[in-house]
Amino acid sequence: MRNFTCVQDIGPLDKAVAEALEVKANRYAYKHLGENRTMLMLFFNSSLRTRLSTQKAAMNLGMNVIVLDVNQGAWKLETERGVIMDGDKPEHLLEAIPVMGCYADVIGVRSFARFESKADDYQERILQQFIEHSGRPVVSMEAATRHPLQSFADLITIEEHKTKARPKVVMTWAPHPKALPQAVPNSFAEWMNAADYEFVITHPEGYELDPAFVGNARVEYNQDRALEGADFVYAKNWSAYAGPNYGKVLSTDRSWTVDARKMSLTDNAFFMHCLPVRRNMIVTDDVIESPRSLVIPEAANREISAQVVLKRILESL
Amino acid sequence: MRNFTCVQDIGPLDKAVAEALEVKANRYAYKHLGENRTMLMLFFNSSLRTRLSTQKAAMNLGMNVIVLDVNQGAWKLETERGVIMDGDKPEHLLEAIPVMGCYADVIGVRSFARFESKADDYQERILQQFIEHSGRPVVSMEAATRHPLQSFADLITIEEHKTKARPKVVMTWAPHPKALPQAVPNSFAEWMNAADYEFVITHPEGYELDPAFVGNARVEYNQDRALEGADFVYAKNWSAYAGPNYGKVLSTDRSWTVDARKMSLTDNAFFMHCLPVRRNMIVTDDVIESPRSLVIPEAANREISAQVVLKRILESL
Amino acid sequence: MRNFTCVQDIGPLDKAVAEALEVKANRYAYKHLGENRTMLMLFFNSSLRTRLSTQKAAMNLGMNVIVLDVNQGAWKLETERGVIMDGDKPEHLLEAIPVMGCYADVIGVRSFARFESKADDYQERILQQFIEHSGRPVVSMEAATRHPLQSFADLITIEEHKTKARPKVVMTWAPHPKALPQAVPNSFAEWMNAADYEFVITHPEGYELDPAFVGNARVEYNQDRALEGADFVYAKNWSAYAGPNYGKVLSTDRSWTVDARKMSLTDNAFFMHCLPVRRNMIVTDDVIESPRSLVIPEAANREISAQVVLKRILESL
Repeated sequence: MRNFTCVQDIGPLDKAVAEALEVKANRYAYKHLGENRTMLMLFFNSSLRTRLSTQKAAMNLGMNVIVLDVNQGAWKLETERGVIMDGDKPEHLLEAIPVMGCYADVIGVRSFARFESKADDYQERILQQFIEHSGRPVVSMEAATRHPLQSFADLITIEEHKTKARPKVVMTWAPHPKALPQAVPNSFAEWMNAADYEFVITHPEGYELDPAFVGNARVEYNQDRALEGADFVYAKNWSAYAGPNYGKVLSTDRSWTVDARKMSLTDNAFFMHCLPVRRNMIVTDDVIESPRSLVIPEAANREISAQVVLKRILESL
Repeated sequence: MRNFTCVQDIGPLDKAVAEALEVKANRYAYKHLGENRTMLMLFFNSSLRTRLSTQKAAMNLGMNVIVLDVNQGAWKLETERGVIMDGDKPEHLLEAIPVMGCYADVIGVRSFARFESKADDYQERILQQFIEHSGRPVVSMEAATRHPLQSFADLITIEEHKTKARPKVVMTWAPHPKALPQAVPNSFAEWMNAADYEFVITHPEGYELDPAFVGNARVEYNQDRALEGADFVYAKNWSAYAGPNYGKVLSTDRSWTVDARKMSLTDNAFFMHCLPVRRNMIVTDDVIESPRSLVIPEAANREISAQVVLKRILESL
Repeated sequence: MRNFTCVQDIGPLDKAVAEALEVKANRYAYKHLGENRTMLMLFFNSSLRTRLSTQKAAMNLGMNVIVLDVNQGAWKLETERGVIMDGDKPEHLLEAIPVMGCYADVIGVRSFARFESKADDYQERILQQFIEHSGRPVVSMEAATRHPLQSFADLITIEEHKTKARPKVVMTWAPHPKALPQAVPNSFAEWMNAADYEFVITHPEGYELDPAFVGNARVEYNQDRALEGADFVYAKNWSAYAGPNYGKVLSTDRSWTVDARKMSLTDNAFFMHCLPVRRNMIVTDDVIESPRSLVIPEAANREISAQVVLKRILESL
């Protein structure tokens, strides 16, 4: 594998999941792969799970790890070419990226959608610059439009818990006080479509996702109807994608919060969320704390998805 | 050892000190213990010594170390259950703690008293949540009411320097411009009582510590009288504990500052302080720079106390 | 080597460059040297290249590395002796430095000129305190008056690219919106003088550097004339050094920006800059992106200069 930014990069999903389960059972069996190899983890945005799980995965593989928080202890970075740099940003990404490539064998990048320009976000301008200019394999640790390490961990978790070959998975929008990117729902949809589950997306009018990610999913505006017979309920907030509302909060309607009544409509579904989650906005305390909640196993599988990705990259160096 | 939060967790002190001196002489002899083990150091508050010494100790034992400053590069954490999380904290401790447990074998936590609620502080709500929900051994890197790695290092330092079987140790309050927790004096008192030294506490009226920590110590309100014949003077500021003054600064009286005249009342005592120390508030330049000052050896022993604790935890995994 | 703060510390330059090229070809051949050794990297100021390259160099040598950003997650440090510490700084450097020495085998320090006092800056008060009080070898990761790891990397880069035994190297001032220290130009001048190249410095009137660093360099106020026949153009901004203007910006004249016309005056010179660089202030996009730009190879050699320095220190421990 050269880069890991989307579901296509991982190849056949059955093989990837099998490798994940093998790594999970023997996570220190590949320490030789990372010897004298350095993982640089670069954060333009905050992180808890991604930071810890990716670092852990790299260390499991014997890599050296350097963590860098841009804007904390490093220089602010200019991202536009051609500007006269007389403002508050003393360094340009066009220098910073190849420089970082000098000191790393693999680069992980977290760079969220900025909601300044839909085109910039959906062209993945920051991530693409790393791919073009770093000279190194690049791993998305959540970019503007996708969060593939999360989706891969979600897939592993569903495969571990499903009791049908083709479970019904429902991704439901839920309210949140601030505008969040579409990266997680886009990415989850991309992976669920690739896994060929029965996949339903439900959200209020106006929250339609990019059709390129929705793919073959059934979109249902009635949350109750969507949840009927679900095996897995994947809750997530996102801001509007379509038209001039891009990046806006159109609703904070708490009737969409996933609670016990909603879960009772399902086929005793598991509850999933990528975390961090706002309790009693996205999901009630009792649902997230119930025995059917998979939020912690999902998070634990972040170490595994990251380790499979890094292992494959190291094997191809 | 499962957790390390107080003096009881370390067992017999003579055995602990003997092990400390052995580790100090051979600090790389146990590198195999930490192989494929990860130490997560989690800071809700600032740190210099604890950060460096605990990381060093873990590395001496061959562990991988991940350092996480909460509120810097990670998400702000909600600590109350039941709230509708529509404010500035996007994640709840009840998710964050078990998630962190997924990626670590041992968790170190620093979480100071917040002075919002004496009950919350003295029930060690944050630390207890880590113990209950992380599924991992937890090491206090200073909690609301105790700083046991510091006290253990202090004990080692006294044992290295004492010339009597049962030295006289005087802990004296000293002035400071801001309200500080009682964790260090509480903890020092707890360990001195357990060590069965001649132990005296001196402070102005109103600065009485929790009787559970004072234990058998003699409390003396006249600082000069307390210092007479002392072998070790342990200076420290703390804010008021008792009654409605909890967490308040009642005095910044610099007549309590430890200076050369005060030290002349002692039996050529050693001067101790846990650091960081405000010079010329807590202690004068000449006393802290004198040959009888143990502040640097105390700090150096922080590596040793942490290493004994981590070694015992690793041995019991 | 005990400390590394200036060109004299590295000894004969031909030997240092030869060692650098050998290390560059075999950067993992010395991993045994750093076993059970800890590098503490301490930042009072922001860093990208120095942070990554020095950490990488230490890890290449098998060292454990601890990175500490002062003022982020640690305590603010008082630097003046004798003050009553009742303000916002809870710890004094006179304690903090020996404490840090307790937990490290080698200490790297970044501490820029503060422009509060020319005497303080040019006496390197902070760096000297680390040398005097830490008890450990100290590596300057850019101090108030020099940036020797950068200059050593610049020297290696010139040696790798020169086609004449004694190339003409021109260091030119260029405009910048904020006041920058003289550390990089001072240090570059010091190393170029030691390398005995044909060395010319050009800048507007008022930007004269400390004569102790200018040494035998030819100073030329006409930038065009200075650039004639140059083999290497080293661009850099600095603030005024001389007299009451110390630390001031006297000009932001963009006619000094290095552009294609300026480069056409040279003997097809290579362009160099230590980075971070403000594009279209210091240098135009086309020049920095041209095939004659060495800014990335210079940065890559930062790992090598740091590794030679740390290797020599480890060998002498």
